[in-house]
Amino acid sequence: MRNIKLTLQFDGTAYHGWQMQKNALTVQETLSCAIEKITGSKPQLVGSSRTDAGVHAKKFICNFKTESNIPPDRIPTALNTYLPCDIVCLLAEDEKAEFDSRFSAKKKCYTYYIFNSKQPDAFLHNYSWHFPYDLDISKMKKAAKAFLGKHDFLGFAASGFTVKTTVREIYSLEIDKEGDLIKITAEGDGFLYNMVRIMAGTLAFVGCGKINADEMAEIIASKDRKRAGVTAPPQGLFLTEVYY
Amino acid sequence: MRNIKLTLQFDGTAYHGWQMQKNALTVQETLSCAIEKITGSKPQLVGSSRTDAGVHAKKFICNFKTESNIPPDRIPTALNTYLPCDIVCLLAEDEKAEFDSRFSAKKKCYTYYIFNSKQPDAFLHNYSWHFPYDLDISKMKKAAKAFLGKHDFLGFAASGFTVKTTVREIYSLEIDKEGDLIKITAEGDGFLYNMVRIMAGTLAFVGCGKINADEMAEIIASKDRKRAGVTAPPQGLFLTEVYY
Repeated sequence: MRNIKLTLQFDGTAYHGWQMQKNALTVQETLSCAIEKITGSKPQLVGSSRTDAGVHAKKFICNFKTESNIPPDRIPTALNTYLPCDIVCLLAEDEKAEFDSRFSAKKKCYTYYIFNSKQPDAFLHNYSWHFPYDLDISKMKKAAKAFLGKHDFLGFAASGFTVKTTVREIYSLEIDKEGDLIKITAEGDGFLYNMVRIMAGTLAFVGCGKINADEMAEIIASKDRKRAGVTAPPQGLFLTEVYY
Repeated sequence: MRNIKLTLQFDGTAYHGWQMQKNALTVQETLSCAIEKITGSKPQLVGSSRTDAGVHAKKFICNFKTESNIPPDRIPTALNTYLPCDIVCLLAEDEKAEFDSRFSAKKKCYTYYIFNSKQPDAFLHNYSWHFPYDLDISKMKKAAKAFLGKHDFLGFAASGFTVKTTVREIYSLEIDKEGDLIKITAEGDGFLYNMVRIMAGTLAFVGCGKINADEMAEIIASKDRKRAGVTAPPQGLFLTEVYY
């Protein structure tokens, strides 16, 4: 039995996230149908992350077991023939039997985009959060430092998800501005449900003066969801890299 | 009677171009409805360019006459309230009575994007031409020089359009590559119907060796559409600037 690892890219606009659901179109289901076309059997797909409806991935990792003997370098083109334009298979590799896209992941990188301009952008409405009020980047950068390191991020998680621990380690959190586009890049050993979106919403609240940057460490320590900012909308979020 | 100049941005994916048509949704019609909502009357809209179905605009200029006394700085936000997300009004200005978006234009800039990679990109399928074969940029740059200056571009025009002359002057034609994305930027006093798309298709044919770069001047001089390359698909084309 082979264990095949796929590197995908997807525009999440049209999908209800990665994870298979009843009565809703998901990336997993769409990919699963394409894999069945080329291998002859429905795969048990394991994905690196659950992503919400509307969230995108520049690099998403998944794996499945198969008896098919199709060479790895033929898989991307074969799959892309059956996949819609908004899901692309970039790479396929044979992996060891024990490789698991979800549990083998060591580090993940997410990017969140805020379009900070009075008027919206016709090309970015599905790929950013339009925030029309002034944002002070220096305050956001200052507040971002409080997230670094190991913390219990219970206050930065949406309910409805069971995890063993809410402690996560953030390795880096960078904020850059290019034109009207603010890019928040977060690297960590893992992220709780909605965590990056709540971090982005909280940093936006700092940028527009609703939350004081100096209070960020205390807000994190409080583990109180109500003290953090809004959950930023899904379309600004991209899973950009998964490290193994 | 005021003459109002609008600067628009639109993602052309969902539209059958700018120009009003029977039985097809166009940018002009959509904008016209939004203007009627804020001024109370249907405008006679003049656009800087006809754009094809699927073609985009980073900056598109249009103007209309109105008796409304709405201040110009209120117009973008008011219009954007009624416009769909893929059409944005960036700026509104009062212009002299004789200003005409189409006939007053002195120079236009178009950008054409080619995504040159074996596999497609999930985010660029509506915003570029996926060209999976190797392209030699240095040959394309060499061929581009032949377009500069004043020429009769009859061989680079689609039929079905009446113009007084097919002579146009190209001020600059630049080709840049960033990652897998090739950007062709053309500035000129005007462009014939499909001209930029035929230029892009011809440059791609040069890049992949179907047309010799040294023959480009002769191909232009031949005024023979059959000697130029394919008409590149509409979704790679952006109107980026109109100068008055």
